[in-house]
Amino acid sequence: MNSYIKHHEWLIIEEGFHPEYNRASESIFALGNGRMGQRANFEERYTGDSLQGSYIAGIYYPDKTRVGWWKIGYPEYFAKVLNAANWIGIDVEIDKEPLDLAECEVEDFNRILNMKEGYLERTFVARLTNGKVIRVRAKRFLSIADPDIGAIQYSVVPQNFNGEITFTPYIDADIRNEDANYNEKFWDEVCKETHKGEAYIVTKTKKLDFFICTGMMYAFHKNGEKININAVIIEKKKYTANKITVPVKKGEDLVINKYAVNVSSTNYEKSQLLKEAKSKLAGAFLKGFETLLKEHADAWSEKWKESDIEISGDVAAQQAIRFNIFQLNQTYTGEDERLNIGPKGFTGEKYGGSTYWDTEAFVLPFYLSTAGPKVAKNLLLYRYRHLKKAIENAEKLGFSDGAALFPMVTMNGEECHNEWEITFEEIHRNGAIAFAIFNYIRYTGDKKYLIDYGLEVLIGISRFWGQRVNYSQVKNQYVILGVTGPNEYENNVDNNWYTNTISTWTLTYTIESMDYVKRVDSEKFKQLIEKLAFNVTEELKKWKDIIDNMYYPVDGETGIFLQQEGYMDKEQQLAEDINPGERPINQNWSWDRILRSCFIKQADVMHGLHLLEDRYDEETIRKNFYFYEPRTVHESSLSPCIYSIVAAKLCDIQKSYELYLRASRLDLDDYNNEVSEGLHITSMAGTWLSIVKGFGGMQVRDNKIYFKPQIPEQWKNYSFMVHFRGSLLKVSVSNLEVNVFNLSDQSVALVLFNKEYKLRGNEEIRIKVN
Amino acid sequence: MNSYIKHHEWLIIEEGFHPEYNRASESIFALGNGRMGQRANFEERYTGDSLQGSYIAGIYYPDKTRVGWWKIGYPEYFAKVLNAANWIGIDVEIDKEPLDLAECEVEDFNRILNMKEGYLERTFVARLTNGKVIRVRAKRFLSIADPDIGAIQYSVVPQNFNGEITFTPYIDADIRNEDANYNEKFWDEVCKETHKGEAYIVTKTKKLDFFICTGMMYAFHKNGEKININAVIIEKKKYTANKITVPVKKGEDLVINKYAVNVSSTNYEKSQLLKEAKSKLAGAFLKGFETLLKEHADAWSEKWKESDIEISGDVAAQQAIRFNIFQLNQTYTGEDERLNIGPKGFTGEKYGGSTYWDTEAFVLPFYLSTAGPKVAKNLLLYRYRHLKKAIENAEKLGFSDGAALFPMVTMNGEECHNEWEITFEEIHRNGAIAFAIFNYIRYTGDKKYLIDYGLEVLIGISRFWGQRVNYSQVKNQYVILGVTGPNEYENNVDNNWYTNTISTWTLTYTIESMDYVKRVDSEKFKQLIEKLAFNVTEELKKWKDIIDNMYYPVDGETGIFLQQEGYMDKEQQLAEDINPGERPINQNWSWDRILRSCFIKQADVMHGLHLLEDRYDEETIRKNFYFYEPRTVHESSLSPCIYSIVAAKLCDIQKSYELYLRASRLDLDDYNNEVSEGLHITSMAGTWLSIVKGFGGMQVRDNKIYFKPQIPEQWKNYSFMVHFRGSLLKVSVSNLEVNVFNLSDQSVALVLFNKEYKLRGNEEIRIKVN
Repeated sequence: MNSYIKHHEWLIIEEGFHPEYNRASESIFALGNGRMGQRANFEERYTGDSLQGSYIAGIYYPDKTRVGWWKIGYPEYFAKVLNAANWIGIDVEIDKEPLDLAECEVEDFNRILNMKEGYLERTFVARLTNGKVIRVRAKRFLSIADPDIGAIQYSVVPQNFNGEITFTPYIDADIRNEDANYNEKFWDEVCKETHKGEAYIVTKTKKLDFFICTGMMYAFHKNGEKININAVIIEKKKYTANKITVPVKKGEDLVINKYAVNVSSTNYEKSQLLKEAKSKLAGAFLKGFETLLKEHADAWSEKWKESDIEISGDVAAQQAIRFNIFQLNQTYTGEDERLNIGPKGFTGEKYGGSTYWDTEAFVLPFYLSTAGPKVAKNLLLYRYRHLKKAIENAEKLGFSDGAALFPMVTMNGEECHNEWEITFEEIHRNGAIAFAIFNYIRYTGDKKYLIDYGLEVLIGISRFWGQRVNYSQVKNQYVILGVTGPNEYENNVDNNWYTNTISTWTLTYTIESMDYVKRVDSEKFKQLIEKLAFNVTEELKKWKDIIDNMYYPVDGETGIFLQQEGYMDKEQQLAEDINPGERPINQNWSWDRILRSCFIKQADVMHGLHLLEDRYDEETIRKNFYFYEPRTVHESSLSPCIYSIVAAKLCDIQKSYELYLRASRLDLDDYNNEVSEGLHITSMAGTWLSIVKGFGGMQVRDNKIYFKPQIPEQWKNYSFMVHFRGSLLKVSVSNLEVNVFNLSDQSVALVLFNKEYKLRGNEEIRIKVN
Repeated sequence: MNSYIKHHEWLIIEEGFHPEYNRASESIFALGNGRMGQRANFEERYTGDSLQGSYIAGIYYPDKTRVGWWKIGYPEYFAKVLNAANWIGIDVEIDKEPLDLAECEVEDFNRILNMKEGYLERTFVARLTNGKVIRVRAKRFLSIADPDIGAIQYSVVPQNFNGEITFTPYIDADIRNEDANYNEKFWDEVCKETHKGEAYIVTKTKKLDFFICTGMMYAFHKNGEKININAVIIEKKKYTANKITVPVKKGEDLVINKYAVNVSSTNYEKSQLLKEAKSKLAGAFLKGFETLLKEHADAWSEKWKESDIEISGDVAAQQAIRFNIFQLNQTYTGEDERLNIGPKGFTGEKYGGSTYWDTEAFVLPFYLSTAGPKVAKNLLLYRYRHLKKAIENAEKLGFSDGAALFPMVTMNGEECHNEWEITFEEIHRNGAIAFAIFNYIRYTGDKKYLIDYGLEVLIGISRFWGQRVNYSQVKNQYVILGVTGPNEYENNVDNNWYTNTISTWTLTYTIESMDYVKRVDSEKFKQLIEKLAFNVTEELKKWKDIIDNMYYPVDGETGIFLQQEGYMDKEQQLAEDINPGERPINQNWSWDRILRSCFIKQADVMHGLHLLEDRYDEETIRKNFYFYEPRTVHESSLSPCIYSIVAAKLCDIQKSYELYLRASRLDLDDYNNEVSEGLHITSMAGTWLSIVKGFGGMQVRDNKIYFKPQIPEQWKNYSFMVHFRGSLLKVSVSNLEVNVFNLSDQSVALVLFNKEYKLRGNEEIRIKVN
């Protein structure tokens, strides 16, 4: 844990220069607009520790799988998110000495992420080794009003000299991925153009033939007046630049506005990329920095209107939740159905920008409530379109007859992760994808989705479960052997309680869904049964037998649901007994030690009790919570949010608050000492859930939305908004009262503290508490 | 399985050219002399499928470990055996057309490995596309009389023309490893010299700075007369050659004798390598091919005198056992204590030429019986010298206080394998290393080894076991969680019966050994206790508690020792139920399916019953054998030999014979469809054990050697020889009698069919059977 970030309601602030945390700051202050992302690297040269990172949504590289011992079923490649052309670069020289914060004295350094308006600003005073002192202000954003465009305003004011300042705005496409194996590079240059005042470079990936055109234009102002200065053209391999030298006097404000465009062959014809780039860039240039920024900030304002959570009395919590909402909205807008949400978004290379079960298990509920059904449906359709590949994936592992195993990690539906204990064994992901269908329909009421798309996916998944179990002669029950549960600190275990539970849940829901579709659209049902060659008698019989005879491990003495068979054979210790110097254990303990320990990376049994909360009585949930939480080290970003929600349900509001704060400030306070690699985007949705579902007690059942709000004692009040069935509700909670305001014109069925209401448009309910 | 090899008592014969099996043949016909090895590649150019392979003992490359998710404890590198300079190459052109068997019509092709004299011979008639027909005979060997020297005799006789034949004898050091990741090369050229008639090249490895000087000389004979012909010198990067064109007439026998030397910086000063190479090569050249071959064949004759096994009535079995003995002796001579035996010897790149537990578990008994105590002691000392690194290795995994975990795979004592389920979990290897000490002392009586070296290793290993167990509160017993047993088709299992058993065996033997050393050399004992900071009270108390309270999984119903907990939950099937087209399963089934199946790769419970045979009654062994053998797919080369020995012990001689034949002809008949990658050298020792320990019933107990021979009905008789306590015994067995001849002058204590004898030197016992 490491807190150098200042608390503020709307801003993320680094005060003073912390080169030792620079990579962490580059992640935390990263910008994105759903189509591209940019770490908070410096525009000017920086020779200190840094991970320069520019990423473009959907652009990846299929790197060859290399393992010590090839196992049949491994995918041929794993996907790497590609670090793309650096378009932010502006090298600066002061009387021929390069500005490089690693080589200067730096004062008054501030890096600020303005979440309200969506821009990054950096200011500092630098004393170069030649004695020249300058004050610099650099401000930039990636437009959400026009997601192909980014803009930078970079100002230099000489403090103690008259002289010459040289600017070299450039595009550098000669980029290597940090995780490249042999420093190989993944981009080839297709063509480039360099003119005075503008430059373009078209690059393509060495595999899969993604093309990108990156362009730049720029303009200079001195003391607010536009100036024209002759530029020198510079071209190198995969690099294009202008070099401009400007005479300045002490106190003069010299500003360069740099406009950039990135257009990709995923959105435009390859042959038209250069033309598109020029046209878009010309438009942006014409508008100018301030106008572009205003359009961008206005768009952010619209987003905040429907998704903000306000917390008063606790700046750290307020800052954190906005940071989480901001980063989620920077990462995924729901507009492009081909895209999904990588665990690190656009903020680092790790996890390859690919899609994990995080989407269904954590992110979907956020978008369901904050963005309405279309975005959530797009996330579901993403998997529907991958069903065929999921069936092929299962076939590679030896399954047949339409059994579908969705990939653990994917870019295009193909599995692209290659550790057997994950790829082959972390099959609970299939359950999350089934549950997401249920969850979407429960929330939206869109049962037609089941008919059109959902049932087909459910049948594929249920067929997988039907084949994946085996009957144990010694137990006289079905077992699921050799799995990795959500807790990845156990591998290849037998009868993981959560996996066994979600598998029979899926089978049950699939059977119910078949009944429903058969009832409401028998023709469609018949077509589907034929298309899938579904053997109604045999397959259903098998599924029902599994549902009736599944084995669930339970501790005989305590009745605790066992995370897996044999869990109680481990040395039973508590996380608080671990030497703090050895936390996080995954950075201090050998894998061997972790695997053998009782310590839990993330909610596992608890994930089941969270998802299927209606099935279990409070005493059961309580017993399991207080057994497992003390054994959980929360070294997955996805962990504390779930425990926080469950703790709130158990009315342990202090515990819930602690876990919430840990979840929400995971990156800002770098709990797990890894934010340098990127932010934990998907878990940010879990943080949002901690408030709305945890403290707010939101549930959806029987086409009604339920709230049962509580408030941590650290807070004066808080409010959040949710979309539900066409209405937009704002829930405000204080120590004294709970207020639900229907901001829409649409009435809504609501249950507040167990009492049912029909809340009409633009009306509110106000209930006193305590 | 694939049998194109002709049966013969002393020869391995490929009759007719089988380009489709060429890589397999290159493995099977490989030559080695303990210091270098050479696959049976062709001397002349060959554009068909081939793995050109020249290997030099002890020369490896530490390749960087790359894994998807780095786990603490992983070694930084894994060792790669390096494919070294090609010194056999002689390109041949017939009237300017290159000889290339992939482009010719080939007739009368024979490849013969003469095991009695240790050479490879290849003969064929080739019709080139220009219509010219030649008869070729190529013969070569790697001298065991002077292990830096190799020699080739290559003869060409024109069959239908007068013309010109061009020879290009060369050394090509521009070699890439087939398993290189990005086709990178691991050798740099240091210098070279090319003269008419001789050439040298000094290369070094890109890491670890191993230097090799490879040299060649050659001479021509026509119809037996030496001829001198002018040569053209050719040099390229890392390549040196002479090119000689010789006019010939139809029927003339044109012969080139090529002599080669490989000297390594592991044996000579780097600065002296070139000089050494020249001097050695000059000596070899002076002797000439025939003399060198005679010295070599004589040395083989000496080896066979003491290690041959004769089988009559079964040519396939006879050929196989000689092939096994021959390959073992080609791989390891026991003369260099820095060397060990890699699973594939010098016959391929797989397994990196590194040392595995195979050495202790399979190979040591072979050398104990066939080469006397010095060679076996060298193998033990190899581990003793690695003790410090084994302690460091355990420390990396979180163990402390002198606990030692020997590496799964090593070149120099450091772990160099990087799959967690193997490296961190296949800890039974530690037991094999402890057992090897016991086995060596039991066989040789050299109890002083315990005092000087053995006890220190035993304490390190026992300390590991003492820390690796944990106490299960639910079982009230010690458990060993998270291991991979010898059966690598299970990973990360709890309470592998074999591992639990060998761990308490080790603790018991260590305690006994401590008592012994304390008794016979109390001063030395005291020193050791001090050196190791051994806490006699606490550590011994813990060890005894573990011995008394270890959990061993047993099936409640049948009393079968369970391979691991939960084994009976698997779907119980038999290997014979597997569709033959899906064998071997590791080439046809996903890893997921293999892991979940009940199928066993190699002896696991059975390995324990084999090692600790005196502990278990016959009924127990029988029950387990007939449970596990039908579930075993024998897809490790190390499997059938152990089952064969146990079957013999159970007097199931037919089963034992079947398993023996499978073990001994594993490579010749390519049972597991992988001999192309190299031979299974270490398992060959297991094959030898199948005869001596299995059919011969050899045991050593109480300083006496036991035999209880049986004979498969397929055999008329068989004989084998063993060294024991200074004597050399030849045991001959037929249907009618068993004869033990003491070939030495030293008398020996012998138990034959449960009856004790003292057999004096040069005496024999003859016992009628049946």
